[in-house]
Amino acid sequence: MSEQWQRPSGRAPDEMRPVQIEPGYTKYAEGSVLISVGDTRVLCNASVEERVPPFLQGQGQGWITAEYGMLPRSTGTRMRREASAGKQGGRTVEIQRLIGRALRAGVDLTRLGERTITVDCDVLQADGGTRTAAITGGFVALALAIRTLQRGGKLSDAPILHHVAATSVGVLDGHPILDLEYCEDSIAETDMNLVMTDDSRFIEVQGTAEGAPFSRDELDAMLALGALGIAELIALQKAVLEAAA
Amino acid sequence: MSEQWQRPSGRAPDEMRPVQIEPGYTKYAEGSVLISVGDTRVLCNASVEERVPPFLQGQGQGWITAEYGMLPRSTGTRMRREASAGKQGGRTVEIQRLIGRALRAGVDLTRLGERTITVDCDVLQADGGTRTAAITGGFVALALAIRTLQRGGKLSDAPILHHVAATSVGVLDGHPILDLEYCEDSIAETDMNLVMTDDSRFIEVQGTAEGAPFSRDELDAMLALGALGIAELIALQKAVLEAAA
Amino acid sequence: MSEQWQRPSGRAPDEMRPVQIEPGYTKYAEGSVLISVGDTRVLCNASVEERVPPFLQGQGQGWITAEYGMLPRSTGTRMRREASAGKQGGRTVEIQRLIGRALRAGVDLTRLGERTITVDCDVLQADGGTRTAAITGGFVALALAIRTLQRGGKLSDAPILHHVAATSVGVLDGHPILDLEYCEDSIAETDMNLVMTDDSRFIEVQGTAEGAPFSRDELDAMLALGALGIAELIALQKAVLEAAA
Amino acid sequence: MSEQWQRPSGRAPDEMRPVQIEPGYTKYAEGSVLISVGDTRVLCNASVEERVPPFLQGQGQGWITAEYGMLPRSTGTRMRREASAGKQGGRTVEIQRLIGRALRAGVDLTRLGERTITVDCDVLQADGGTRTAAITGGFVALALAIRTLQRGGKLSDAPILHHVAATSVGVLDGHPILDLEYCEDSIAETDMNLVMTDDSRFIEVQGTAEGAPFSRDELDAMLALGALGIAELIALQKAVLEAAA
Amino acid sequence: MSEQWQRPSGRAPDEMRPVQIEPGYTKYAEGSVLISVGDTRVLCNASVEERVPPFLQGQGQGWITAEYGMLPRSTGTRMRREASAGKQGGRTVEIQRLIGRALRAGVDLTRLGERTITVDCDVLQADGGTRTAAITGGFVALALAIRTLQRGGKLSDAPILHHVAATSVGVLDGHPILDLEYCEDSIAETDMNLVMTDDSRFIEVQGTAEGAPFSRDELDAMLALGALGIAELIALQKAVLEAAA
Amino acid sequence: MSEQWQRPSGRAPDEMRPVQIEPGYTKYAEGSVLISVGDTRVLCNASVEERVPPFLQGQGQGWITAEYGMLPRSTGTRMRREASAGKQGGRTVEIQRLIGRALRAGVDLTRLGERTITVDCDVLQADGGTRTAAITGGFVALALAIRTLQRGGKLSDAPILHHVAATSVGVLDGHPILDLEYCEDSIAETDMNLVMTDDSRFIEVQGTAEGAPFSRDELDAMLALGALGIAELIALQKAVLEAAA
Repeated sequence: MSEQWQRPSGRAPDEMRPVQIEPGYTKYAEGSVLISVGDTRVLCNASVEERVPPFLQGQGQGWITAEYGMLPRSTGTRMRREASAGKQGGRTVEIQRLIGRALRAGVDLTRLGERTITVDCDVLQADGGTRTAAITGGFVALALAIRTLQRGGKLSDAPILHHVAATSVGVLDGHPILDLEYCEDSIAETDMNLVMTDDSRFIEVQGTAEGAPFSRDELDAMLALGALGIAELIALQKAVLEAAA
Repeated sequence: MSEQWQRPSGRAPDEMRPVQIEPGYTKYAEGSVLISVGDTRVLCNASVEERVPPFLQGQGQGWITAEYGMLPRSTGTRMRREASAGKQGGRTVEIQRLIGRALRAGVDLTRLGERTITVDCDVLQADGGTRTAAITGGFVALALAIRTLQRGGKLSDAPILHHVAATSVGVLDGHPILDLEYCEDSIAETDMNLVMTDDSRFIEVQGTAEGAPFSRDELDAMLALGALGIAELIALQKAVLEAAA
Repeated sequence: MSEQWQRPSGRAPDEMRPVQIEPGYTKYAEGSVLISVGDTRVLCNASVEERVPPFLQGQGQGWITAEYGMLPRSTGTRMRREASAGKQGGRTVEIQRLIGRALRAGVDLTRLGERTITVDCDVLQADGGTRTAAITGGFVALALAIRTLQRGGKLSDAPILHHVAATSVGVLDGHPILDLEYCEDSIAETDMNLVMTDDSRFIEVQGTAEGAPFSRDELDAMLALGALGIAELIALQKAVLEAAA
Repeated sequence: MSEQWQRPSGRAPDEMRPVQIEPGYTKYAEGSVLISVGDTRVLCNASVEERVPPFLQGQGQGWITAEYGMLPRSTGTRMRREASAGKQGGRTVEIQRLIGRALRAGVDLTRLGERTITVDCDVLQADGGTRTAAITGGFVALALAIRTLQRGGKLSDAPILHHVAATSVGVLDGHPILDLEYCEDSIAETDMNLVMTDDSRFIEVQGTAEGAPFSRDELDAMLALGALGIAELIALQKAVLEAAA
Repeated sequence: MSEQWQRPSGRAPDEMRPVQIEPGYTKYAEGSVLISVGDTRVLCNASVEERVPPFLQGQGQGWITAEYGMLPRSTGTRMRREASAGKQGGRTVEIQRLIGRALRAGVDLTRLGERTITVDCDVLQADGGTRTAAITGGFVALALAIRTLQRGGKLSDAPILHHVAATSVGVLDGHPILDLEYCEDSIAETDMNLVMTDDSRFIEVQGTAEGAPFSRDELDAMLALGALGIAELIALQKAVLEAAA
Repeated sequence: MSEQWQRPSGRAPDEMRPVQIEPGYTKYAEGSVLISVGDTRVLCNASVEERVPPFLQGQGQGWITAEYGMLPRSTGTRMRREASAGKQGGRTVEIQRLIGRALRAGVDLTRLGERTITVDCDVLQADGGTRTAAITGGFVALALAIRTLQRGGKLSDAPILHHVAATSVGVLDGHPILDLEYCEDSIAETDMNLVMTDDSRFIEVQGTAEGAPFSRDELDAMLALGALGIAELIALQKAVLEAAA
């Protein structure tokens, strides 16, 4: 009976949407990537600045930070432009803090030198999973920017410690599923974002019961699905970086 | 050897700080509580308004929201007052969204009627774990406000579905520990906030690797410690509410 | 006939509410006091920073400033949180400027050294007279912070020139009264805040006709009542500081 | 000996600067006045709107409010434009609240009808006493706007209860003086603003010790000087209004 | 000799960069276009809302407005994100007002019905001429949104009056040139933006002497070049709209 | 027939309003002018500061910038005060950028030395053409401030390159007219602002079709009228500066 259940998207419970990572999408950024996860499209640009924020000055280490934004009509209904509203909303702030933490966890900041890499993640089109797409794509943009520094002779050490990627998992009608798109995300009981490394350890686990609380069994099933999806994403990241070398 | 390891606080790995919940701390709020978790002190005031936000109007349900603030000198070094800075910082926004989600998860909003309960959580003194103390204390303030509505004849149904409480767990020097105070929190490798119900299900799981990524085994150990602590907190919530009846 | 008239509070015209000043209310601030004037409760924390604002740099003197805030549910109806509104209201700004001026008037800033003491006055519960309670309690917090500096060997001179305390007086139904609580303040014809020293001189006289203008006779009667009340408050300040020594 | 003491301005202690009130300075406002007090020049425009603020709707009364601003180069050193700084400073807010309260005290708001009169007081040139000049000139602008309403047949009753005018007094080198200009104001020990009616009663008494606290005797001397000056100002207001009739 | 002079871009003085207009770039907007003018790329999304701004309510006509933004790394050096800065800069505001005026000039607003079309123009990559590209592309997005309304049966009349397109012209080393890219724009003596219709009339003429003032002869030469370029752009707009039909 | 057509103002098509430029209007500014163009009155104050903005530091040149504001009741209906609204509107920003560019175009900034001149243009009364009046009057204020610098021995070179003045032209009922006042401006089909030098070259040409697009012939007619008016304004500027010498 359970196998008769169908995800709204028609995908298998452990099936991700098609993912594409297009390097070099813009010409100015030290690292630039357009990532598509199904219809979700996020432009990730990594910019290098040769200075660190005040709280790090003189400590011989670098910094990585992220900013996130959605274009007003990246969604079904036009949202107010945050620049015009005069501030970034709570959701935006929360997401960009998450992206920044996730990217920093993959890098040895002391090997980066006294510089800052800012990864701008701008959503051109949103269909669920924009924050995890931003982390997965943003990591490639970051790696490309680091490569630019290395090729420019500004960096001798390799500061990357782990590959970092992210996906979402959830529970819908009692079924654990991988990589929720909007039509699923909006009705799921539980939504969880996972950020993991290439050695299957966790950087972030953020699960929220939107409807009923979730049990330990459901949590375990989601963690297993997530590990699967992230392994696929990291394989793709590596292939893209190798091809772009 | 491992048993020789000492937490900076001197507590056992699974030992919480002393917790007190003092109901009726202020006289105006429909529900008011001062919660102390060790030296962390949060004043939680629940206010009832007989209307709902625009996005819920005419839908026959209520709303619960939270706001969070820290007094400027609740911390070791004075922080800038957010009202004077002209906006709430990213951390504040993130925390108050978490508290609001956590409290809503314990209540059937359709049984609340078309009204809003706002739970203000103001930190008088911070020594680690202010957001989880705010959730644990805020839930009692919310329950007291609902009781005020019931005694005033404005509510016949009991809208509370589950007790909700929260605590933090972490990994420090490779050891999983429960209820981190500031001197521990500031050096832990991993910090995880758990929000759970009285039937041991999860409302929020928010784990972040501050240093090294954490393994599945460490995750499991933290979840076990957290369940333990939250059971204690919910027992205290129930005792306080009964005594205040 | 006049003796038959009753204040709404039931107190005698020259009778203050019970006042308590509890030193050491929080553990981080260099000087901390919770002052209660009847049901009005204000937490006053004095913080020392070893620098002065730009306009005083290099002039060999210190600075004292104050900030004032009300918790959203310190009042009968919940007020909007100023941090969330994005700015401090006019009343807040006016009050914190008054508190700062009043506290500075009691101290020889040249003997304070090049440092700033910020006195945060946060109203936990408001029942009239919050600004005068903030001055009276804030002065004790300031004195405790100065004592902390002296004990730390950072200050040899005694910078305090006068004790400073404040109270409100008013005219209600034509009767001058001392220390108005909310049920009186909200209907008084005239409301006057007085800040005075321990040698009965004036630092601030702020009288406002809320209804009819007030005569010179009424002004004189209010000034006399205020001097009485402030003498009591300064006696209490001195007792508290001595007991805490 | 005392008669040898000279005010910095060269005026006698009880001598005001020359005052001019020029009605009809701009053509759009319902009431418009340029007031000069010595070199202090304030443009006061009273605007009528046929509605009241939300908190007064349906209560059958009107409202009077004021706004205050200084042109950036009205002072010796250019100040930052508040519109460009993004907010009104604390001093501005405090002053415009004072002007509003003072003007309202002269008018029976129930006889004004459900309309708002906003009095904009913009300082073209500042040489001390801008807030009291704004009140004195603003009252004439307000009276002219009320006359416009009466001539337009929109108001039958006469809503003005008292003439309202204001001046500053102070203590300098121990000498009480009337109407301080900038070179005096900036060095006075005490600065007091008085707002009074044409029957010599008080609307506002705002005295501040800038240096040493002031005694009861000094307070009495300042009150006497102020009453003198305000009587002159009210005589001028009446003459201007009669001439403009 | 003059023919020996070379534009920095290597183009002929009257030669535009290659222009592409890609309709349907995003899936949600009622009209969506990605326009590329050389390396300048602007995403133009037109959104329909079934209401008009307050100042037009009940007047039986529609409204067209535009918003403009640059992604932080659309330029050679990363710019601060306006949403994070808390406001739109002066240049942004000026440009989006220009785009809005230009688009409105091509449409009969009374035939649009009581609805608003907002055209968001977001610069993905900037290489000179972003505002004129936004107008040229934005007009196609607008026309597509109007077509969506017509096909949905919500609009019977054809509200478009003229095609509207824009380009820049300038004077560099004394030579009038068409369609300046960044390496030209940044050193030109004069920069002029022209917005014109398909019957060669003017909607906007905005010429600015960046260096030396320009003569009437130079003005005439620039106007002629601009008319040429705009005719080409309008031909392309028409071809794109026909192909997309 | 055409000669029967009447401008709403009653003036001839090429007739300007009476213009007056009153130097020394305020006493503090290094250059101060009140300009009246008909009923439009703008106070222009030029302030000198001995430093340049960060982007010019160490480059051995000066800077000229402008700010623009309208008093709330400078117009027929009271506008909201921008300082109270918390930001400058789009129109204000656009205008002050235009004034700044126009004034800079008349001056050799390298001969100004490392200092900034800020020209504040505050509209006391608005009747059309405030931005062009601000440029024409602002240039005289600027020239007076430069003279103050020269007389103070701080400037040996003469940094002024050209006189700069501005006027508006338009098309109304098909007729080109010079210097539009409000009753004309509000109904004109086309509105164009011209900024020119004393050798008849252009600094800014800003023409906007408010109704129908305008033809090349209309553009030529407007340019001719504008050149005429600006020549008159520059003659007046020179006369005023000579008389004030």
